[in-house]
Amino acid sequence: MRLTRKYRFSASHRLHASQLSARENQTLYGKCNNPFGHGHDYVLEVSVRGPVDEATGLLINTRVLDRLVGDIVLKQFDHANLNTQVEAFQTLVPTTENLASHIAGLLRGEWKTAFPLGAKLEKIRLRETGRNTFEFVLSEHELQ
Amino acid sequence: MRLTRKYRFSASHRLHASQLSARENQTLYGKCNNPFGHGHDYVLEVSVRGPVDEATGLLINTRVLDRLVGDIVLKQFDHANLNTQVEAFQTLVPTTENLASHIAGLLRGEWKTAFPLGAKLEKIRLRETGRNTFEFVLSEHELQ
Amino acid sequence: MRLTRKYRFSASHRLHASQLSARENQTLYGKCNNPFGHGHDYVLEVSVRGPVDEATGLLINTRVLDRLVGDIVLKQFDHANLNTQVEAFQTLVPTTENLASHIAGLLRGEWKTAFPLGAKLEKIRLRETGRNTFEFVLSEHELQ
Amino acid sequence: MRLTRKYRFSASHRLHASQLSARENQTLYGKCNNPFGHGHDYVLEVSVRGPVDEATGLLINTRVLDRLVGDIVLKQFDHANLNTQVEAFQTLVPTTENLASHIAGLLRGEWKTAFPLGAKLEKIRLRETGRNTFEFVLSEHELQ
Amino acid sequence: MRLTRKYRFSASHRLHASQLSARENQTLYGKCNNPFGHGHDYVLEVSVRGPVDEATGLLINTRVLDRLVGDIVLKQFDHANLNTQVEAFQTLVPTTENLASHIAGLLRGEWKTAFPLGAKLEKIRLRETGRNTFEFVLSEHELQ
Amino acid sequence: MRLTRKYRFSASHRLHASQLSARENQTLYGKCNNPFGHGHDYVLEVSVRGPVDEATGLLINTRVLDRLVGDIVLKQFDHANLNTQVEAFQTLVPTTENLASHIAGLLRGEWKTAFPLGAKLEKIRLRETGRNTFEFVLSEHELQ
Repeated sequence: MRLTRKYRFSASHRLHASQLSARENQTLYGKCNNPFGHGHDYVLEVSVRGPVDEATGLLINTRVLDRLVGDIVLKQFDHANLNTQVEAFQTLVPTTENLASHIAGLLRGEWKTAFPLGAKLEKIRLRETGRNTFEFVLSEHELQ
Repeated sequence: MRLTRKYRFSASHRLHASQLSARENQTLYGKCNNPFGHGHDYVLEVSVRGPVDEATGLLINTRVLDRLVGDIVLKQFDHANLNTQVEAFQTLVPTTENLASHIAGLLRGEWKTAFPLGAKLEKIRLRETGRNTFEFVLSEHELQ
Repeated sequence: MRLTRKYRFSASHRLHASQLSARENQTLYGKCNNPFGHGHDYVLEVSVRGPVDEATGLLINTRVLDRLVGDIVLKQFDHANLNTQVEAFQTLVPTTENLASHIAGLLRGEWKTAFPLGAKLEKIRLRETGRNTFEFVLSEHELQ
Repeated sequence: MRLTRKYRFSASHRLHASQLSARENQTLYGKCNNPFGHGHDYVLEVSVRGPVDEATGLLINTRVLDRLVGDIVLKQFDHANLNTQVEAFQTLVPTTENLASHIAGLLRGEWKTAFPLGAKLEKIRLRETGRNTFEFVLSEHELQ
Repeated sequence: MRLTRKYRFSASHRLHASQLSARENQTLYGKCNNPFGHGHDYVLEVSVRGPVDEATGLLINTRVLDRLVGDIVLKQFDHANLNTQVEAFQTLVPTTENLASHIAGLLRGEWKTAFPLGAKLEKIRLRETGRNTFEFVLSEHELQ
Repeated sequence: MRLTRKYRFSASHRLHASQLSARENQTLYGKCNNPFGHGHDYVLEVSVRGPVDEATGLLINTRVLDRLVGDIVLKQFDHANLNTQVEAFQTLVPTTENLASHIAGLLRGEWKTAFPLGAKLEKIRLRETGRNTFEFVLSEHELQ
């Protein structure tokens, strides 16, 4: 059984790779390279896989998941400027690809503490706009 | 080729595990433990996998699928109270997890009669609200 | 300027008019007359009209609206059985028409206390399912 | 006949009223007062009213509308920081209320040049997130 | 009280005005002028206004509306080629503007027979794609 | 990392299998067999899998993907009649199953030229209407 639960956060960012010249940045990222930044309403989907508890009929307690995602993702990213307010993106370019990997890493780091039994973190999906969605699927040996 | 076809039904339920105390039920299920029940508009997605027929260009005849889902799922669950009107949920807690497994079992039981050739039932997805989606993926040896 | 803000709640109900015979109820409401009830995920939209405050750039403080709708609508209706748990629907049939009027009345009753200046309650929209939406538009003299 | 046509743009902003103290700003705008800004994917709907041309069956040529909205709205606002890159918001707080009025004013200023005959600009709707929508309805004498 | 109910149909059409030259048609309608036609999945919303019946709590019986829309709109337009299979569009260009007016006229013609009491047809909304929506609002004296 | 990017096109088609009799076609395809055709607004999702470039933080340059999909899919299919204007469907029935396979084949043929490094075409998803979605998943050895 797999549960996918949806969260939302709004953030601003600017795409600019320090290893590239100003012109290369402009060509590569287009309007996303605007030095003053711009913003998105991200939709984050967290997918969890595991057995259903026979007594309760539940895969996980979604309040535990909400607290985990709230504490380590939403509190930090919602209504934030990713470039200046999230440490990881002072070196990494805050593309949605990097944002998805980063969120997956944050969740993996705390997963076993929050869910010691059974339920595994399987996939992170991050929708940037209606057109682009990024998925970070944990490999079998990463599944915790 | 995989076809995913969408169905909808509305039902009411109450989450209450008979093995837990009143207080434990209240803590675990929160408002969903309300003794008078509450309701949802479920979205059911049925995914079928198989080869495309060369003459017709179709994976399956969707009218056969509609009849199957109508007869063994919608007729029983739509506009019903799951706890009192569906036999399985007189012992099982009618969480969406259990509802998804139960629907998968019902479809598997009749699948080969409805689709003797080729098309296999691969996955059941049940959306409870806009926030939570449950998937029951049949394992390779269950694929019929 | 008009602001429309969206809320959601899930509830169960049964449609049954006490003035009609069992057969008339069955003919009129069809599956919605099921004695065990069924449920929906309602979407409530509250529309407010008024001038924009020059200093703050806001029409209303949405936290005040959230508290009002939370206190007098969601707390009572979310995850409830409308027939047995909402007093008004012990005599009125809990159709979405009546539910929309009832919610409009509840909001009107507290509106001036919550929003003494400027902003008027203009419209209530209640979406029952993806197919049916009901709107209760306050007449000009009802606008408070 | 009324046509409503949808456009999208992404922008970042910070809500901060210069007439209020730091604490008042924080209380009023909450996370939206974050000094580093945050962002949204706005949906802009432009509603036009008028007679249908008998020969062509069209209310307006949507390419003319697209060019107008592109030139005076999207070019300036898409992937921009509203506070620093849009002149009007150096004095006005860039709330969605003010953004909607401002866009309505920009479109009204150019409307008669773009659509000298018949079709009138009737309404601007701006969706900030899935929860909040703002409408600026032109009064009858403003309809141009 | 106003009820808005949603219907869907798929149709193909070609936009070509007989009073214009081939080049003018090409310039005006662009790809929609393709002589082989193209198609859309239309969403039709019918809005009805009136008092709520006290005994039943209903504005109208939606099954009567479904039958009316089914008989005079969907049966004729669903899975049809508008240019060749709908008589009105052998002279009128099948733009969504004309399609909306035509559907409003068809519904008005049968309205009083279907709904002799109270409920009035108020508005027809036709969504052509996610971007364009057309509304035909009946004037007060047309309201039947 | 997997990126899924969405495209839209509108087309008309008629389902008719040359190997079947008129009556068999009518029974099998129902209204979709209408000789004058009908149409849909298709949503195409292209899924790409691969490593994220460390310098740019991107999986692929989406402008390259847009150009590829534009050139070999949208230019040919958007606002077209599939039966008469797409060569492949002069022999194949233009069901969504066949359309999805055909588009997958077109993209695979040009993939290595457009994306010589890393990113692989993994999946094509084609949504015909809100109810039916078809997926063509490339097998491991087809992944290019």
